[in-house]
Amino acid sequence: MKRFAAVVAYDGTDFFGFQVQPDRRTVQGSLEEALAKIHKEEVRTDAAGRTDTGVHGFGQVIAFNSGLERLSPETMKDALNANLPDDIYVRKVYEVPREFSPRFHAKKRIYHYYILNAPEPDLFKKRYTWWFPYEIDIELIRKGASFLLGEHDFAAFRTGRDDRTTIRTITNIRVLRTRKSIVLIRVEGISFLRRMVRNIVGTLVRVGSGNLHPEAVKTILESKDRSMLPSSAPAQGLVLYKVLFDEFET
Amino acid sequence: MKRFAAVVAYDGTDFFGFQVQPDRRTVQGSLEEALAKIHKEEVRTDAAGRTDTGVHGFGQVIAFNSGLERLSPETMKDALNANLPDDIYVRKVYEVPREFSPRFHAKKRIYHYYILNAPEPDLFKKRYTWWFPYEIDIELIRKGASFLLGEHDFAAFRTGRDDRTTIRTITNIRVLRTRKSIVLIRVEGISFLRRMVRNIVGTLVRVGSGNLHPEAVKTILESKDRSMLPSSAPAQGLVLYKVLFDEFET
Repeated sequence: MKRFAAVVAYDGTDFFGFQVQPDRRTVQGSLEEALAKIHKEEVRTDAAGRTDTGVHGFGQVIAFNSGLERLSPETMKDALNANLPDDIYVRKVYEVPREFSPRFHAKKRIYHYYILNAPEPDLFKKRYTWWFPYEIDIELIRKGASFLLGEHDFAAFRTGRDDRTTIRTITNIRVLRTRKSIVLIRVEGISFLRRMVRNIVGTLVRVGSGNLHPEAVKTILESKDRSMLPSSAPAQGLVLYKVLFDEFET
Repeated sequence: MKRFAAVVAYDGTDFFGFQVQPDRRTVQGSLEEALAKIHKEEVRTDAAGRTDTGVHGFGQVIAFNSGLERLSPETMKDALNANLPDDIYVRKVYEVPREFSPRFHAKKRIYHYYILNAPEPDLFKKRYTWWFPYEIDIELIRKGASFLLGEHDFAAFRTGRDDRTTIRTITNIRVLRTRKSIVLIRVEGISFLRRMVRNIVGTLVRVGSGNLHPEAVKTILESKDRSMLPSSAPAQGLVLYKVLFDEFET
């Protein structure tokens, strides 16, 4: 028995999220279907993160056991891509130790959030950006983001109640205007609560547009109260960009 | 009666081309449906160019007569966008003289062709680029393109036989690496034969990859013989980018 890890990109638009659900088209479901075709038996996958409906993956990492011992990682990659639908692409495959867990061994998770900050919408970008037509001041966002760095109780920034502890660590937030009309908010942390990145971005964008004072981010954080949050940023701007491991290069 | 011109963007992926066809989803058909809802009667449109199935528009120009004399161009724009599907967006609306013809009054048409020139495919770009994984030399493309500038008989670069004359004028071809992995071929001319831009790009890319000598472009052009052509570049990389008029700014 071999264990493989795969770095997976997907366009989340036409999936009901990452996680397998009966009778729904999900990314994990499609990956397991492709693996079943290759292995002629059921293959279960573990993943580094669950992305919600409409959220994209560029560097999602999955792992699975395989009885096909003669297959090299490169051949497994090609076999997967030959059996996957058009909106999923396996970028890399590695052989990993039997005990490897993409969820528990992840050192860092990096999310990218893309905002189209322009007076007019752009239909060529709408699948992958949040169109926000009001002026955004990058410096205000940076100031607001600074209150979130480090270890905090992020209870105010979660949606749902499925996590035992709401303490998380954000290691870095970068805010860049990558092109004239595109603002990228890059959030780096060890792990995240459900919807935490979209809730953070929703808040920071209102800071950038002047609707919320940067210090309000601190107040919301310390309140631990979700009812103070501005609305969440929409799913389509979010990408699980990279997950870092000691075991291999993603 | 007023006459309006509109600058229209569309994602061609899910359309059977621009031109109205019975029982097919076309861009023109969708525009005329939206106009019919606004006007409560049939409204016919003229267009600057017909794009094939899968080809996109950023600056397509249409014109139509309207009995809604009180509607300003800005209100017409909003009414159209409120009634159009997600993959069409009207960027601008102008009032134009009654005799205005987008087809016959166009001074220049500019097409953009986007190539993803990278070893791996990118599913976030696949709707709008041609993935060409072999190395491309921009200078070779420029050299090949130089033979096409000016007025020539482009019979060798057409597909189909619906045009009376095959003499056309190309005013400019620019070849740029806009990002590390994106090559843009921008073709500017007065008007074009059917599939002419995709046939030109298909040829030039083979020049860029070293499969065809730059001088071969001249040989193909002078042969007036389509059977010498390399295969056409695929539809999804092509955008009708801009059409220039004296009457207004597009």
